Amino acid sequence: MQFHHHGYVSHDPRVLPAEGLGIDRPADLPDEMDVLIVGSGPAGMLLAAQMSQYPHVNTRIIEKRDGRLVLGQADGIQPRSVETFQAFGFAERIIAEAYNIGWMNFWGPDPENPQNIVRTARTADYGYDICEFPHLIVNQARVLDYFAEAAADGPGRIVPDYGIEFLGLTVREGDEYPVEVRVRHVVAEREGEERTIRAKYVVGCDGARSRVREAIGRKHVGGVSAHAWGVMDVLVNTDFPDWRTKCAINAEAGNILHIPREGGYLSRMYIDLGAVAEDDDRRVRQTPIEEIIRKANEILHPYSIDVKDVAWHSVYEVGHRVTDGFDDVIDGSGRTPRVFLTGDACHTHSAKAGQGMNVSMQDGFNLGWKLGSVLTGRSPESLLATYGAERRPVAQQLIDFDREWSTLMARKPEEISDPNELATFYLGTAEFPSGFMTQYTSSMITGTDVHQALAAGFPLGKRFKSAEVVRVCDGNVVHLGHHARADGRWRVYAFGDRTGAALDAWAAQAAPLFARHTPSDADADAIFDVKAIYQQPFEELEVTSAPELFTPKSGPLQLTDWEKVYAAGPSKWTEIDIFEARELSRDGVVIVVRPDQYVSAILPLDAVDELAAYLEGMLLPA
Amino acid sequence: MQFHHHGYVSHDPRVLPAEGLGIDRPADLPDEMDVLIVGSGPAGMLLAAQMSQYPHVNTRIIEKRDGRLVLGQADGIQPRSVETFQAFGFAERIIAEAYNIGWMNFWGPDPENPQNIVRTARTADYGYDICEFPHLIVNQARVLDYFAEAAADGPGRIVPDYGIEFLGLTVREGDEYPVEVRVRHVVAEREGEERTIRAKYVVGCDGARSRVREAIGRKHVGGVSAHAWGVMDVLVNTDFPDWRTKCAINAEAGNILHIPREGGYLSRMYIDLGAVAEDDDRRVRQTPIEEIIRKANEILHPYSIDVKDVAWHSVYEVGHRVTDGFDDVIDGSGRTPRVFLTGDACHTHSAKAGQGMNVSMQDGFNLGWKLGSVLTGRSPESLLATYGAERRPVAQQLIDFDREWSTLMARKPEEISDPNELATFYLGTAEFPSGFMTQYTSSMITGTDVHQALAAGFPLGKRFKSAEVVRVCDGNVVHLGHHARADGRWRVYAFGDRTGAALDAWAAQAAPLFARHTPSDADADAIFDVKAIYQQPFEELEVTSAPELFTPKSGPLQLTDWEKVYAAGPSKWTEIDIFEARELSRDGVVIVVRPDQYVSAILPLDAVDELAAYLEGMLLPA
Repeated sequence: MQFHHHGYVSHDPRVLPAEGLGIDRPADLPDEMDVLIVGSGPAGMLLAAQMSQYPHVNTRIIEKRDGRLVLGQADGIQPRSVETFQAFGFAERIIAEAYNIGWMNFWGPDPENPQNIVRTARTADYGYDICEFPHLIVNQARVLDYFAEAAADGPGRIVPDYGIEFLGLTVREGDEYPVEVRVRHVVAEREGEERTIRAKYVVGCDGARSRVREAIGRKHVGGVSAHAWGVMDVLVNTDFPDWRTKCAINAEAGNILHIPREGGYLSRMYIDLGAVAEDDDRRVRQTPIEEIIRKANEILHPYSIDVKDVAWHSVYEVGHRVTDGFDDVIDGSGRTPRVFLTGDACHTHSAKAGQGMNVSMQDGFNLGWKLGSVLTGRSPESLLATYGAERRPVAQQLIDFDREWSTLMARKPEEISDPNELATFYLGTAEFPSGFMTQYTSSMITGTDVHQALAAGFPLGKRFKSAEVVRVCDGNVVHLGHHARADGRWRVYAFGDRTGAALDAWAAQAAPLFARHTPSDADADAIFDVKAIYQQPFEELEVTSAPELFTPKSGPLQLTDWEKVYAAGPSKWTEIDIFEARELSRDGVVIVVRPDQYVSAILPLDAVDELAAYLEGMLLPA
Repeated sequence: MQFHHHGYVSHDPRVLPAEGLGIDRPADLPDEMDVLIVGSGPAGMLLAAQMSQYPHVNTRIIEKRDGRLVLGQADGIQPRSVETFQAFGFAERIIAEAYNIGWMNFWGPDPENPQNIVRTARTADYGYDICEFPHLIVNQARVLDYFAEAAADGPGRIVPDYGIEFLGLTVREGDEYPVEVRVRHVVAEREGEERTIRAKYVVGCDGARSRVREAIGRKHVGGVSAHAWGVMDVLVNTDFPDWRTKCAINAEAGNILHIPREGGYLSRMYIDLGAVAEDDDRRVRQTPIEEIIRKANEILHPYSIDVKDVAWHSVYEVGHRVTDGFDDVIDGSGRTPRVFLTGDACHTHSAKAGQGMNVSMQDGFNLGWKLGSVLTGRSPESLLATYGAERRPVAQQLIDFDREWSTLMARKPEEISDPNELATFYLGTAEFPSGFMTQYTSSMITGTDVHQALAAGFPLGKRFKSAEVVRVCDGNVVHLGHHARADGRWRVYAFGDRTGAALDAWAAQAAPLFARHTPSDADADAIFDVKAIYQQPFEELEVTSAPELFTPKSGPLQLTDWEKVYAAGPSKWTEIDIFEARELSRDGVVIVVRPDQYVSAILPLDAVDELAAYLEGMLLPA
């Protein structure tokens, strides 16, 4: 965490100095704004936190509810989400209060007594096997709290406008604020008051029944299976020994997906209510909680649960839907998108792979910096078309994965030939639900993979997978990727050649390229945070000898930044040599990483012209 | 972090349900109270956070200042303090914002050009070599913020009464509230208003010039050396390559102790201003900041600093003083202490070993649970005499250590025969400044060491040194000691025998002993948090088969606690077998740990009578 460079900070350094519109933010929703976010779920709140880093962009977020979400339904936090939380500054806090999924156990019928269940397999869960971040369970409401804090404490000081409902919108291309939005106050003394407001861009984060989606005429394509599940968050006493372990239970009486939750007592159970008759007409949704509990006990036999408190419950039929487009541009028109859809507004599916909140947040992370870049004049408007182009395939992959997983989960014992099949599938596909299989293809922001061989461990288009390095200024072992915050900046990781001479030469040539896209009145690293990673042990390096590109001066005092020069390990506190761990060329390589952490260009140290062309293809001169 | 057992929690689980006086805490300082804390420095604020865990004890904390501390002078956070923060629930947050000391470098005169300094040694700092906690630098103001949060969010909802000055006190033994205290409001509309209030106990946490100390007639014994130092927190640009590394610089022109601070830019420098003439009469304290900076540059030659901002500076002569007693009982009187001294009020020394704040906090940690135990009727008043008996020797050791260290730091180059001597001393003594050498001797709360051989790695009287174990209920690898929170409870770690049979037998016999000291209307584990650690791999254990002592039911719903049953590793995510790591007998052993984390009894599994006698010696029947 870096601070004090704008002068001495006594208070919580997570509260950044207010800037721009954050200095005197109007309490009331204005008539005109740059970005209007509709809905304060995971995608909307992440987006608010992200836009708070662009304090000169006027962003507002409206929410029909009259305040903070109290009881969230989503709870699965995949490692990629924790990685994202790290960038937003609250990973360590949410980890401390979440349930960490260490294992997933599998239960099936006892062969000798098939109406009883027995544990058939223990499978180590994937979090820490795949990356440095865990796989967690924590109430969505807490995730939203942390994003709300990041939004409120960011320079833009963004807080949701609660109690305001979205009614509809019209896009009037050509106006400065082309999206005309009708809203209604729904709480307190302003209840019933309707207003028309105008925005440059509107983002629909308003869930599966999105009115924004409806307003732009997008269709939610797919259907609902004829299979119902009950779900409940319950506090119980039980003799079931895996109450605190995630498990899949496949009994003759049906299936349970069992997920322990944060706090040490609560667990969530997804309970198979079986096939739904064609003429059921949603009657299954009226299944009383007592019946769900009875069914759970039937499946758990010979174990049982004594339910002391039901925190939440519901009944649903599994649906799988993807919206036919993620923005308001009918393919081929070529105009700039003005309205975007994120999260459940454009993809809905079963809850059982713990994906919904996670993929939604990545929608928001993908879109936020693009809006910020365009609205601050860093990038052309065409950048905004990449949002739907990148995220719609991810949604489709998600639906396909979830359909397979939820089908496997709903089988009867006699349909299962190999009792380890579910465990094998779970582990074999772990990188997908972890959130790390997303790979963006070539576009104005993702370069070509011709130089991929220089950095095999940083696949182009996938998220930058951090590794430990040694910070030269103080010898501390740190995760290279964790220095990056979700502040809208590009990261450039310049890995050195054997002597470091080519790296230093690159710095001299590349510096003017970065400067070309950086406003002259901004800090030198305001757009590009460029870091050097030398091959030499840190003891052989002095940070004061590094090129100025890696030791820029910033802030009102123009203080040197000491935290951009690194050395590869191993060192006293790490075994890792990042060049080995990420299969990097010993001749050096430059990795350009997007503000949302995806690898977007891989270049040799001598390809400065190529770097210039890449930057010019997506960024405007400052 | 455990919650939900009193019902579903939606908000930040760090905010505990209000209880007792916390439910409707009066804003104004009352006329009578159980505990009055004078001063809101590290000892006082820790004490407030601790007393908030005793919500039926009326604790108030007065502070002359009109609000939060803005600029703290202490900044060194030793590993024992981070361990303490863990118990108070904010370690991960303060670690995220602090500077981690990875290395200490040493600089001396260049043999070939003695007016220049050169780096002579790099020494890995001790934090992570000694325990799982780092050695940090962070502003005292932030430490106080976190303790203030813990105090306000604890069940007692304690917040400081700012703007109230302590004037004096009189002890009237025999009264229900025997300490009569005179205070004065010093801010806002009540400025000048004097009041007399009464308390059962008063704790002087009011610093080196303690008025509480003066009021009870205790003497601060010791003196001031004739050697002056300048100290400054500065933001600079510099060519000195170790600006971000802790270092000791021993130049011909004098000495600097250089300490980088949190945030990546700020550093603190202690600059040797040389011997002070006998007739100086404190004139050295008027040394202007320009002179201190000039001196720093002289010492740093050939490097230099260009100071951009001075956040704080001061000049002082090193003093070493210990108070002749830590409470108001003149030795031999035998009466219950009514007034206590903590922190700088009873020990002052140089700042350079980074000890002051740390030892002060341990004073508070030692005293808090004792006050709580006596005031809730768990322990006899005689417990309070152990505070001074335990903490005064620690203060004396601190003074002795600091005198040696600060003398070594102030030497001239020609006085140094071995250039590695300072580095050798620093590392060789690391366990002392880390805070882990404190060892309480036999008393009513510390048993005898006759069974020490059963647990060589848990020395009696030293703090319980945690190690990784596997939680049986979910297979997660956790630090055994980190489950313990600073909630005033005793921890009993019962390590199993080879089969676990003797451990289960112990549980049956020991349960009534713990119950004897536990109120019948309180949770079964309200006083003793008893945990089992089996030798078997966790896969061979079921938590539902463990004795009820290890799976008690608690809270209004009487829910089973799943987090008291552990297995020794190794396991998938740890190499550690706690029995090997802490040299524990394979026949099992019981370790009793005080609320402030010190090992207070070591007993074989078959010594139940001895356990009973130990408990009866310090606790009253409930």
